[in-house]
Amino acid sequence: MNIKPLADRVVIKMLEAEETTKSGIILTSKAQEKPQVAEIVAVGPGGVVDGKEVKMEVSVGDKVLTSKYAGTEVKVDGEEYTILRQSDILAIVD
Amino acid sequence: MNIKPLADRVVIKMLEAEETTKSGIILTSKAQEKPQVAEIVAVGPGGVVDGKEVKMEVSVGDKVLTSKYAGTEVKVDGEEYTILRQSDILAIVD
Amino acid sequence: MNIKPLADRVVIKMLEAEETTKSGIILTSKAQEKPQVAEIVAVGPGGVVDGKEVKMEVSVGDKVLTSKYAGTEVKVDGEEYTILRQSDILAIVD
Amino acid sequence: MNIKPLADRVVIKMLEAEETTKSGIILTSKAQEKPQVAEIVAVGPGGVVDGKEVKMEVSVGDKVLTSKYAGTEVKVDGEEYTILRQSDILAIVD
Amino acid sequence: MNIKPLADRVVIKMLEAEETTKSGIILTSKAQEKPQVAEIVAVGPGGVVDGKEVKMEVSVGDKVLTSKYAGTEVKVDGEEYTILRQSDILAIVD
Amino acid sequence: MNIKPLADRVVIKMLEAEETTKSGIILTSKAQEKPQVAEIVAVGPGGVVDGKEVKMEVSVGDKVLTSKYAGTEVKVDGEEYTILRQSDILAIVD
Amino acid sequence: MNIKPLADRVVIKMLEAEETTKSGIILTSKAQEKPQVAEIVAVGPGGVVDGKEVKMEVSVGDKVLTSKYAGTEVKVDGEEYTILRQSDILAIVD
Repeated sequence: MNIKPLADRVVIKMLEAEETTKSGIILTSKAQEKPQVAEIVAVGPGGVVDGKEVKMEVSVGDKVLTSKYAGTEVKVDGEEYTILRQSDILAIVD
Repeated sequence: MNIKPLADRVVIKMLEAEETTKSGIILTSKAQEKPQVAEIVAVGPGGVVDGKEVKMEVSVGDKVLTSKYAGTEVKVDGEEYTILRQSDILAIVD
Repeated sequence: MNIKPLADRVVIKMLEAEETTKSGIILTSKAQEKPQVAEIVAVGPGGVVDGKEVKMEVSVGDKVLTSKYAGTEVKVDGEEYTILRQSDILAIVD
Repeated sequence: MNIKPLADRVVIKMLEAEETTKSGIILTSKAQEKPQVAEIVAVGPGGVVDGKEVKMEVSVGDKVLTSKYAGTEVKVDGEEYTILRQSDILAIVD
Repeated sequence: MNIKPLADRVVIKMLEAEETTKSGIILTSKAQEKPQVAEIVAVGPGGVVDGKEVKMEVSVGDKVLTSKYAGTEVKVDGEEYTILRQSDILAIVD
Repeated sequence: MNIKPLADRVVIKMLEAEETTKSGIILTSKAQEKPQVAEIVAVGPGGVVDGKEVKMEVSVGDKVLTSKYAGTEVKVDGEEYTILRQSDILAIVD
Repeated sequence: MNIKPLADRVVIKMLEAEETTKSGIILTSKAQEKPQVAEIVAVGPGGVVDGKEVKMEVSVGDKVLTSKYAGTEVKVDGEEYTILRQSDILAIVD
């Protein structure tokens, strides 16, 4: 099964806290917003979104920082993903 | 009876939870937002919506992920549908 | 007496629940929003509305789906009507 | 004394309920919004309002439907008027 | 001492209720909004405000209707003034 | 130490109430908004801010009226300043 | 490990209160907003953000004033950083 995000959306897979620790990244958060590291698994086509041209700057495989409350969680074939807009991605880590 | 959505709206039919499980998709959700898989049964013409050109990217028969609280439910000829804007569709699944 | 809606507004007459059932359409609704079937009885000229060109896509006599809470109710010559913007009309049914 | 509304504003005089009934129009309303019939007594020049060109479509003497809570009431020379934007006028009745 | 308003702001001096009555204008108000008659004592230069060209349409000495809650009160040399945007002025009276 | 405001921001130093009284200006305020007289100590470069060209109209040394709740207070080298946008300045006094 | 902010975002490292005092800067704050001095450690590429061209005006190594509640905190390799938009930076100090 395959998820093809529309417009400027991307599909990300949250990396486990354990995994995160191994890679040396520990994420703290304020009150209602838990930033997390995730891996991008699908990228929408971009294009005109809400009347504005959006160019996709992230690629499949990028490790990214985002806010936990951005986007919508889905479970496909037993795996949990989050679908969110590219503008909700804060940074790429490598 | 026929529903012709206006502007950038689409008519979708939610797939039953049972159906969903068979196809290997199980959807979880956060607090106030329950994403669901649905099938598109009608697509509006797009065009200029709120002063911005919108091109329809989805087609009748597409399986899509959306948020349960997006759109308005209607019951036509005994079947329940939801009418929502294309921008409320998160992704196409196949 | 005659009602001429301004700009992108239309005047609709809600069809009775009984009438609705006969035509095979039963409308359900979520919490605060009751979609209903109505007939269009007057259509504004469209044109530039809030700085954006709006083209009227509906015609007198069209049966439409809308949300009950959209628009303003008026009673003219003993008949109840609702005046709302074209963008509050979800779909045409036939 | 003379009231000259600025920009896209118009001055209206609400017609008495009695008057309204005689002309065959009875207005009902939902919760927080009481539509009423009024007569236009002054029309602003239109022009660029909030960066958008507005053309005045109503004229002195027009009978209009509006929402009671739109605009600001003033009393001039013992008469009560309401000053509101043209976009708060729903329809012309004749 | 001199007040020079910036952009599309004007400085007005509220006319006393007594004064207002003599001139035959009595202003009533709804709930949270008390319209008042005032005299303009200074006018900003207009120009580009929030990305939009604003032309000043009022002049020093104009009597205007405005809402009491628009703008900010200041007391200069013992006199009370209000500084508000031109768009908060409803009408000129003469 | 030197504060260089970005974009359309300015740095102001509130004049003491005592100072204000001597110069003949006494400022009153409504509920949640206390206008105050301040002196401008640094001016940002202006330019494109949020997609709109902003030209700086105030200069270092100008005495200005502003609302107390606009901007952010900072203490640098023992002196308190406020950093706010030029659009939060109501008027220049001289 | 390396953080590359997207679009108009920057990564800053808050300077310790102790450090701040030594450099002669003491920051006070109103109610819900604590301005702080920070050092910029990474700068995004700018470009078109939400349909508007954004040019980055800050550089790595700049000391900046910002509001504590702007942005999202992350901890990478044991160090705490904040990722925020350039428009949330109030001023550069030197």
